Amino acid sequence: MDFPTWMSAIQARTEIALERFLPVSTAAPARLHEAMRYAVLGGGKRVRPLLCHAAGEAFAADPARLDVAACAVELIHVYSLVHDDLPCMDDDVLRRGKPTCHVEYDEATALLVGDALQTLAFQVLADHGATTAMVALLAQAAGSRGMAGGQAIDLAATGQTLTLEELEFMHIHKTGALIRAAVLLGAQVGGADDDALRRLAQFAGRAGLLFQVVDDILDAEASTATLGKTAGKDAAQNKPTYVSLLGVGRARELAAELRTEAKTTLTEFGARARRLIELSDYIVERNF
Amino acid sequence: MDFPTWMSAIQARTEIALERFLPVSTAAPARLHEAMRYAVLGGGKRVRPLLCHAAGEAFAADPARLDVAACAVELIHVYSLVHDDLPCMDDDVLRRGKPTCHVEYDEATALLVGDALQTLAFQVLADHGATTAMVALLAQAAGSRGMAGGQAIDLAATGQTLTLEELEFMHIHKTGALIRAAVLLGAQVGGADDDALRRLAQFAGRAGLLFQVVDDILDAEASTATLGKTAGKDAAQNKPTYVSLLGVGRARELAAELRTEAKTTLTEFGARARRLIELSDYIVERNF
Repeated sequence: MDFPTWMSAIQARTEIALERFLPVSTAAPARLHEAMRYAVLGGGKRVRPLLCHAAGEAFAADPARLDVAACAVELIHVYSLVHDDLPCMDDDVLRRGKPTCHVEYDEATALLVGDALQTLAFQVLADHGATTAMVALLAQAAGSRGMAGGQAIDLAATGQTLTLEELEFMHIHKTGALIRAAVLLGAQVGGADDDALRRLAQFAGRAGLLFQVVDDILDAEASTATLGKTAGKDAAQNKPTYVSLLGVGRARELAAELRTEAKTTLTEFGARARRLIELSDYIVERNF
Repeated sequence: MDFPTWMSAIQARTEIALERFLPVSTAAPARLHEAMRYAVLGGGKRVRPLLCHAAGEAFAADPARLDVAACAVELIHVYSLVHDDLPCMDDDVLRRGKPTCHVEYDEATALLVGDALQTLAFQVLADHGATTAMVALLAQAAGSRGMAGGQAIDLAATGQTLTLEELEFMHIHKTGALIRAAVLLGAQVGGADDDALRRLAQFAGRAGLLFQVVDDILDAEASTATLGKTAGKDAAQNKPTYVSLLGVGRARELAAELRTEAKTTLTEFGARARRLIELSDYIVERNF
């Protein structure tokens, strides 16, 4: 199966699994459930589920169990987007080509949507055969020493001048932690040993930064229509980015270096790591 | 040990356990961790931890394992308070006798505090020997078909006329679900069988409504200084309550009935249910 076909297949099965895990919109409270489905379904590249399945396939993991882990990570990701778009955070109106949740519904509903999606992530794991080690891994990645902590650092950094090290520290938390969880959960479903998990954690570290560098370049260069979210937001909000620190040219070079490093960490896995390697390329080439 | 001594002992050990589970305020991001500790520590009657320990003691559960379950439930409760106090929700400035989190810090930080406290609740369970069944039980209670769903129903009900049945439906979700989880998690730590859990679920249902009826009476009658939160808020926000629907006199009668019903569900446990019975009285008599 070529990569685009594989990617479409994983995206499609992720959509079906998410649809199944979400409460039906007719169940009370209907408006909340409708808003949860609005925020989650029918959008997004599903990068984290793709990484989860790619890592799991390297260990011949059961696809149905990978759906569970992949959806849990994606639900955490979507909750963070819904809260990040709120007026007291980034105050954004466009996400995945649609009005953001608080614009389509209202602020209080969007707050509860994010809250309930986070809960659902842990419920999906607990209800479908995951281990408490997997629950702990996702919680560690999502919490104050992971993604939510990264958001707090991001808040504090707006309008500040960061060093490259500080910027990297922020992104290791804000986006890196959840990308790492996606990869490691997939591998754990497949029964990967500690040595493999250590190697994959290194891969995920490089892939996470790569993703962020590319995101910064896209924010600076692509159009709102292409992105499906507001472009040029970082500069407008005076946020430190790889582009603001390094310029676009050096940021592109950094992306190339990170891609090479990411692939190098996979060498010992040989052909089993095929989808992870293809995803490294996809992350870089997705829009430029 | 008399009840006040027992209660003080549980409250004290809960405070110590929460302090231990929370990240230290010097760890990055320091401001977020400081705000999380501000929201959680040094306040609250810890009703849910008390219920959890009381139910656990009926089955001779290990107190250290009860601390884990009790703290997880309390962290979910505090996260819901922090988000509920935000301007887009109840917009409140006083909680547990202190400025609310978004007043003391800022809205974005309070949003992240709530998010991270929810994550921490699941992490505490997963890191300290809980089962995935316990994770699932807490998630079910906290999510869109539990507490968060109750908040959504509450939002939709503001300014509406509800029937007594609709009001009860709202509270079964908004406060009842988490109280039920506190009781059932405590009993599960003690290895209670299905029959006992069924009985305790009935107790928790009555106790949860009892707690809410008393809360409505207190909101209408007590002073802000006594409550440590803004009094008279329900009427000011035109929220339907047991007092607005029934009047104070009938609400007091309902509380007395619910207390009797709650205790009746415990009959078969005999003396083992002592603390649960004492807590039923405490809930009613806590301030009037």
